Amino acid sequence: MSSEFLTVQEVAPRDGLQIEPVWVPTEAKVALIDALSEAGFSRIEAGSFVSPKAVPALRDGEEVFMRMRRLPGVIYVALVPNLKGAQRAMAVGADELNLVMSASQSHNRANMRMDCEASLAAFADIAAHARGGDVLLNATVATAFGCPFEGRVDEDRVLDIVDRYLALGIRGITLADTTGMASPRQVARLVRRARARLPASALTLHFHNTRGLGLVNVLAAYEAGAQRFDASLGGLGGCPFAPGASGNICTEDLVHMCGEMGIETGIDLQRLIGLSRGLPALLGHDVPGQVAKAGRNCDLHPMPAERVEPGQPPAKQAAA
Amino acid sequence: MSSEFLTVQEVAPRDGLQIEPVWVPTEAKVALIDALSEAGFSRIEAGSFVSPKAVPALRDGEEVFMRMRRLPGVIYVALVPNLKGAQRAMAVGADELNLVMSASQSHNRANMRMDCEASLAAFADIAAHARGGDVLLNATVATAFGCPFEGRVDEDRVLDIVDRYLALGIRGITLADTTGMASPRQVARLVRRARARLPASALTLHFHNTRGLGLVNVLAAYEAGAQRFDASLGGLGGCPFAPGASGNICTEDLVHMCGEMGIETGIDLQRLIGLSRGLPALLGHDVPGQVAKAGRNCDLHPMPAERVEPGQPPAKQAAA
Repeated sequence: MSSEFLTVQEVAPRDGLQIEPVWVPTEAKVALIDALSEAGFSRIEAGSFVSPKAVPALRDGEEVFMRMRRLPGVIYVALVPNLKGAQRAMAVGADELNLVMSASQSHNRANMRMDCEASLAAFADIAAHARGGDVLLNATVATAFGCPFEGRVDEDRVLDIVDRYLALGIRGITLADTTGMASPRQVARLVRRARARLPASALTLHFHNTRGLGLVNVLAAYEAGAQRFDASLGGLGGCPFAPGASGNICTEDLVHMCGEMGIETGIDLQRLIGLSRGLPALLGHDVPGQVAKAGRNCDLHPMPAERVEPGQPPAKQAAA
Repeated sequence: MSSEFLTVQEVAPRDGLQIEPVWVPTEAKVALIDALSEAGFSRIEAGSFVSPKAVPALRDGEEVFMRMRRLPGVIYVALVPNLKGAQRAMAVGADELNLVMSASQSHNRANMRMDCEASLAAFADIAAHARGGDVLLNATVATAFGCPFEGRVDEDRVLDIVDRYLALGIRGITLADTTGMASPRQVARLVRRARARLPASALTLHFHNTRGLGLVNVLAAYEAGAQRFDASLGGLGGCPFAPGASGNICTEDLVHMCGEMGIETGIDLQRLIGLSRGLPALLGHDVPGQVAKAGRNCDLHPMPAERVEPGQPPAKQAAA
């Protein structure tokens, strides 16, 4: 009986698939989302409503949202860049809109093709449009822990953006380590400051494993008071600045860690592993997740049968 | 000016290379060790003195120890399974002998081809032989956090083995997560209990990243009072039970994490990254380390030059 709980928001259908070079058919996207719903997630980022020219991999957002089977109690999130995207997402019944702006001006220009002031104006339009309806709003501060162009990002600036989001009536806030630059003490500090403004239920942390610190940062954030985390099945979703490096933290690795620590997630790990093991066939390449390769801790192995002389460890076995 | 320090013992020349199927020429091993010495390590596990039939990849241990250039202040460690191996290692001037036994009887039989009692008897012989000389002794408790055949390993048994090592006059102790089954709260608990018996300077933690928790466990151990960690350049050194999964924690990823947290290691990260980037050519395959692929946090990128319309994020860029 654990009294600890951590919410995992699955982002593979959006952040995971958006940079895949192969076309994933609508049918396969819908099947993936349906399987994720059944694995126990309470939140799934299911698509984005940006220009189909900009992100062709997700150009079928409307169809995905209309065809996926919605489980009661699951919040299906759509990423939207502007009012037009918000209207498209609301038309197909997205439960929550996720708006993204980078803390660093240069990254916002490169990623969203506008200045931060233009992003904030668009968010104000979206918030006004959504007011009175039942769609939830979340806004992300991208590059909150570092910018690949500018380096260090000032914490006060990040928190100022959080305050501006809240002032627009946006209730959910995500702090995103877009290119995997966060480190654990930095994370703990920023989470504590964000939690002074927000309840745990309104704060999401989005980490990338680009430099191997994804799960380290999750634990630092959790211990500092965060309880909701984005993660991507198989660790799908790379970073354009780090070819070959990991992208989003891997959902099944996170769920496995929580299970070993006695932290409940409500997610069926064995089912997740099965889904993750299907990704290479779907996408044509290996994925970064470890637990799908290694198995769970509780998946024991038979002892090797061969016998050699005492004192002679067999080749291919690790001695320590 | 940091008052925090963490010692990294580099194990790639031993634990990293032992399972490589390609033959790494003696010349290349020596060059690697010499380069590691110059990168600032104070401890390097440079080879093993087991049967050449059992671990053919390291059959040139004597020659490596004789040809490598020893830097003053660096401790060059040799893994030995028995008295004969200890005598061979001492003959070529190993500074420290590392003895390995698994906490689980079944893993010790599979890995060392003997019961734990036979291992302990061999360690007593080695300790008696080494007494009065100036060679240092370290003994490893392998599978200290879980066994791939038996599952959970009792903490009292691990600590009982530590006590038996200490009673033999062995001063250095390593707790090894041989197949990557440790989780952070378990690690913190065992480290606190081990530290009640040992000063930080005598305790080493050896983690594998098999299930993605290597650096999480390092930080948990560090915060619980451990200060010395094994790590392998590039994350070399897989696990025979997890094909395709990571093995040892990656040295440059660990050193990068410490640098970002203000914990000194004394190691030249940029030099390490250069060495790690040479591994695929030496071994014929990619290696798991992330920082060598992604670069350091401080390695900034130029902004992309292309311009598209506002509100349209370009393909291949992560929006969050």
